[in-house]
Amino acid sequence: MTYNEKRIPVGILGATGSVGQKFIELLQDHPWFVITALAASERSAGKLYKHAANWFQKAPLPSRIANMQVSECTPDLPCRIVFSGLDAAVAGPIEEAFAEAGYIVISNSKNHRMRDDVPLLIAEVNPEHLELVKKQSHKGMIVTNPNCSTIGLTMALKPLHDIFGVEKVSVVTMQALSGAGYPGVSSLDILDNVIPYISGEEEKMQIETLKIFGKLNDNKVDFANMVVSAQCNRVAVVDGHTESVSVKLKTRAAKEDIIAAWRNYAGVPQELELPSAPNPVFRYFDDPRYPQPRLHRDEGKGMAVSIGRLRDCAVLDHKFTVLSHNTIRGAAGCAILNAELLVKKGYLDAE
Amino acid sequence: MTYNEKRIPVGILGATGSVGQKFIELLQDHPWFVITALAASERSAGKLYKHAANWFQKAPLPSRIANMQVSECTPDLPCRIVFSGLDAAVAGPIEEAFAEAGYIVISNSKNHRMRDDVPLLIAEVNPEHLELVKKQSHKGMIVTNPNCSTIGLTMALKPLHDIFGVEKVSVVTMQALSGAGYPGVSSLDILDNVIPYISGEEEKMQIETLKIFGKLNDNKVDFANMVVSAQCNRVAVVDGHTESVSVKLKTRAAKEDIIAAWRNYAGVPQELELPSAPNPVFRYFDDPRYPQPRLHRDEGKGMAVSIGRLRDCAVLDHKFTVLSHNTIRGAAGCAILNAELLVKKGYLDAE
Amino acid sequence: MTYNEKRIPVGILGATGSVGQKFIELLQDHPWFVITALAASERSAGKLYKHAANWFQKAPLPSRIANMQVSECTPDLPCRIVFSGLDAAVAGPIEEAFAEAGYIVISNSKNHRMRDDVPLLIAEVNPEHLELVKKQSHKGMIVTNPNCSTIGLTMALKPLHDIFGVEKVSVVTMQALSGAGYPGVSSLDILDNVIPYISGEEEKMQIETLKIFGKLNDNKVDFANMVVSAQCNRVAVVDGHTESVSVKLKTRAAKEDIIAAWRNYAGVPQELELPSAPNPVFRYFDDPRYPQPRLHRDEGKGMAVSIGRLRDCAVLDHKFTVLSHNTIRGAAGCAILNAELLVKKGYLDAE
Amino acid sequence: MTYNEKRIPVGILGATGSVGQKFIELLQDHPWFVITALAASERSAGKLYKHAANWFQKAPLPSRIANMQVSECTPDLPCRIVFSGLDAAVAGPIEEAFAEAGYIVISNSKNHRMRDDVPLLIAEVNPEHLELVKKQSHKGMIVTNPNCSTIGLTMALKPLHDIFGVEKVSVVTMQALSGAGYPGVSSLDILDNVIPYISGEEEKMQIETLKIFGKLNDNKVDFANMVVSAQCNRVAVVDGHTESVSVKLKTRAAKEDIIAAWRNYAGVPQELELPSAPNPVFRYFDDPRYPQPRLHRDEGKGMAVSIGRLRDCAVLDHKFTVLSHNTIRGAAGCAILNAELLVKKGYLDAE
Repeated sequence: MTYNEKRIPVGILGATGSVGQKFIELLQDHPWFVITALAASERSAGKLYKHAANWFQKAPLPSRIANMQVSECTPDLPCRIVFSGLDAAVAGPIEEAFAEAGYIVISNSKNHRMRDDVPLLIAEVNPEHLELVKKQSHKGMIVTNPNCSTIGLTMALKPLHDIFGVEKVSVVTMQALSGAGYPGVSSLDILDNVIPYISGEEEKMQIETLKIFGKLNDNKVDFANMVVSAQCNRVAVVDGHTESVSVKLKTRAAKEDIIAAWRNYAGVPQELELPSAPNPVFRYFDDPRYPQPRLHRDEGKGMAVSIGRLRDCAVLDHKFTVLSHNTIRGAAGCAILNAELLVKKGYLDAE
Repeated sequence: MTYNEKRIPVGILGATGSVGQKFIELLQDHPWFVITALAASERSAGKLYKHAANWFQKAPLPSRIANMQVSECTPDLPCRIVFSGLDAAVAGPIEEAFAEAGYIVISNSKNHRMRDDVPLLIAEVNPEHLELVKKQSHKGMIVTNPNCSTIGLTMALKPLHDIFGVEKVSVVTMQALSGAGYPGVSSLDILDNVIPYISGEEEKMQIETLKIFGKLNDNKVDFANMVVSAQCNRVAVVDGHTESVSVKLKTRAAKEDIIAAWRNYAGVPQELELPSAPNPVFRYFDDPRYPQPRLHRDEGKGMAVSIGRLRDCAVLDHKFTVLSHNTIRGAAGCAILNAELLVKKGYLDAE
Repeated sequence: MTYNEKRIPVGILGATGSVGQKFIELLQDHPWFVITALAASERSAGKLYKHAANWFQKAPLPSRIANMQVSECTPDLPCRIVFSGLDAAVAGPIEEAFAEAGYIVISNSKNHRMRDDVPLLIAEVNPEHLELVKKQSHKGMIVTNPNCSTIGLTMALKPLHDIFGVEKVSVVTMQALSGAGYPGVSSLDILDNVIPYISGEEEKMQIETLKIFGKLNDNKVDFANMVVSAQCNRVAVVDGHTESVSVKLKTRAAKEDIIAAWRNYAGVPQELELPSAPNPVFRYFDDPRYPQPRLHRDEGKGMAVSIGRLRDCAVLDHKFTVLSHNTIRGAAGCAILNAELLVKKGYLDAE
Repeated sequence: MTYNEKRIPVGILGATGSVGQKFIELLQDHPWFVITALAASERSAGKLYKHAANWFQKAPLPSRIANMQVSECTPDLPCRIVFSGLDAAVAGPIEEAFAEAGYIVISNSKNHRMRDDVPLLIAEVNPEHLELVKKQSHKGMIVTNPNCSTIGLTMALKPLHDIFGVEKVSVVTMQALSGAGYPGVSSLDILDNVIPYISGEEEKMQIETLKIFGKLNDNKVDFANMVVSAQCNRVAVVDGHTESVSVKLKTRAAKEDIIAAWRNYAGVPQELELPSAPNPVFRYFDDPRYPQPRLHRDEGKGMAVSIGRLRDCAVLDHKFTVLSHNTIRGAAGCAILNAELLVKKGYLDAE
């Protein structure tokens, strides 16, 4: 099958959940992919999607999707790729079953992220890691994307790491509510409040960053020799994770060179002109009040990363603010871009 | 005059503003002080306070205060101490004029904070700095308190610095709206949003901390040999600054020893049993979800500092979350406690 | 037992839930009542309260309560009165069992509110309805309080109904999040939003008002001949229901007479000086910007009702804004005041 | 000039303010209009727009506009139509001067709304009122649109009034922050709060509705014989006014007929296929939780009106919830649609 003749049939695992809904929203009118299967828990299986899901996206539920029947998450779906927005409690064995059965599993779940043979992939940051799938014994394959807060951070670090080398990173996040799914955070816990704790989040940011920046060596990833410390907070923002970052570089870097590194950066998705690739990747703001989540989370249709306030840090070398859309760039959109890379790199033809 | 025979007459400069209102609220029913003068800008002078001020505190405006006439900010007020909540644009010369005329000026404004001969005072942290006033050539004196976000930070650091020595500090703040005064931050700028910038705030935190922890040497302060880096954000919280702090200590410290240092800390105000002194000074939470501004900002009537989430930091040594009430502990309440210290230490008798 | 010799032992049904927690908070240091039993679902039974409950009140959990063991909701608790904050799904038979066994059940649940022989009681509004309990065949008795949004409305209407007669009421509510319990409303549903629907709420306001203002006639309530239409909305407020009310009166009333009716009103709880009775009952604001939930919900320790903006209505006669604290005046506080009335009226001695 | 040969040059008065910015955003890429002049106060005049305005729209400031020079508001601008977003404090004489000089003034300001010879125009509701301009003695003309909260209400009432006749209306609004301009409402006034008062708003809703539904009779408007009572509240919502409406009709109407009236409604803008006309005009929701401002304010690019929860009212006949985007449908978008109607109706050719 070649992807430009006709659209590739794709399925969504966990289609009724909040990540699943975002997959549906972003895959609407996708030039390469067409949704042909929706799967969810037993409770939803058998129902029409419009009856099974509590659709809470701003974009209206497409009527074709609304009237599709929801299947169970068993590997007999009429599609080639499955996007997984499954809850971590169940994602592990289901995703494996699909990979075993020959499906290409593009997962946003955390379960397989740290497996030796599974790429933890951001198409702009470590596209070469895609090769790890060759080590997988599955008939199909599993590709994962990192945690939402890791994605914004590592994207912002990527141009700096390429040019100057990143040694140490201290990051404090102010994360949006949508990151916790639906119903997620109780309104009573966050109105007029900050929650200084997100279970497991700091650990993910700290370890995932090392894998993402790891070198591919004899088809395994040597984790990056980098130190990362994260403190994660929840704030009363609907979408868009804001992060205050301090960084120590291996090489001395001038402020204007760092800004230029962001402004000039283009990764493989930009070179390949993948449909979901933002261009430019980064928007750097000279106005010190920016970026702000409500104003800038939708930059590049939610796929670009916004940065501002680069200045000297007395403890490390530099500090700045990063903003990225957590459910688009940080979840469903990142996964879709990963799938696009996979298609363009011929991983579907190869079989 | 002895403070326990009858209450000391005090005045408030900038009485109609948001810090001024907090002074009024906290000085109501104060055992040592009685408000005898209210002063504000020319526009308000001559009016009854209830007509001059747009009172927006939750506590009702006391009727005695409501019917006091507002004076101009000239040094002929019928009181001994003046609490200044003046805007920085005008505070400088007015506070000096009062000090020249013999008043004890307890100021929350930034104008004189960095002067060689002016104590930048937190009664629990550096009470010995009060002696700096002896260098002042004023007939009266000026005593200042630090910026709201500095106060929470330096209080949390104090027990650690005493026992283990603080070398480096990296702090990211999530600051409340009331810190910007009234009307302050537009609702359109902060609903569903974070503002990653507060003009001048990071500089204040970085330099004030060094003065506060400085050693008094031959009646001047040798700034502390400490490195501080701050990143300041505004979030949608009414009251209470939350801070994510990383710290490097001179001495290796066990987690339980640090927690004990906080839990056991008592400063001069606690020993002297000053009326506004919180006791305990710190509340440390074992629950990782805490402290949170809406739940804990009023600990110790807003004068205590709440801390939680102490854990190892891969970049520095330890990290934790600090919360303090920015308009009580971080402004008016800190100033009043400073005044109480001054009274108890005999600075009023001395004249 | 006489209530003034020693405190009356009381239990709380549904003690771990959000209404249960409010009962605990408000009964702390109560002059007449002492908590001697805490009961909750099987899941919690047997545990210490501090382990069974996720305490999320601002006031710290009292240590005596923290270390009490939670019982099951069976009628063998060591107390005389039980306050019920049970979920409506289970409250019906449990409350009946307690009443059968001789307990005085003071319930905030909706299950028995509309029963012929159960008073739907607001101590300031219809204290005479208490007599209905004599019709109950229980060895003990059940007394209920109305829905939170009904309480604010009917209290505001009471002085008008007494003097001028209320014929028609049109009310639109803007209700606080705490009214939905915990976790209740998802933050994603309410941040930057309004929800124009609260299931069952409008029906409760419309029918409960008629029973409350009903005349006691031969020991049954003749529902009031009054027309009520309610529209209920949820808004992003933590505590405090705001209601925009229009009313048609039987008698022509001057604006100043209506305001005087509120300002001068004292009910039976005020005359009897019950411990939880607010005095004054109403605060009327001349400032057209008031009342506001964040500023005024705590009037009278949360037991008073705030009113403002009385003006002519072109459709009915008058319109105004009412504010009341939904979890204090509108729930636990109202129930406690009902219990106080019952005690003072001798319903405990009688047995 | 014919509008379909080339685009009509338009200017914006008050271009730097919040309504002015919305005009710029909505006129970008307009098929009929091209912005050729930007005018604002003396303070801004002479500067490039990007330096004069604090652009706070989500859409980026178009670079052509950014680099236009701001003029003073004097009637020598190079354009045919001026859209006025001027503050009411200055709009009156400036708009008149432009009309005198021959410009077509499309104003969102309140100053001339109630003038006998000025149409208070919503293109879907009272397009025939446009003829009023013939009475104007100006060389040009002034056309106004109603207040933001009036627009949502009267649009929702229009199909009902056409078919069943509207006799009485009771409306309670929950209005968004953007309606107050920028900086507008202080964050301290609205977080965790409701403000039950918007100065002048209720009066506008009550009187404007009567003019809008008035009959054109011998070239003057006979105000509608209708009774309207409004209660206006401000809530913590960025954009989108929600209104709880009760209505009494002249003719008995079945619920399904009312819903059909909304769903089938098409006005003159829809028939003429004006570029900014939403189609459908109304979206009626069967789900009782809807409409909600965050989810539905952008229906029809912000030009459609969302309605839900139609049900019987015990006081009047029917009640329902209306939602409309206050700065698009309720301000700049309504004005632009008015201008489109004017163009299509030949008011520009006539001269």
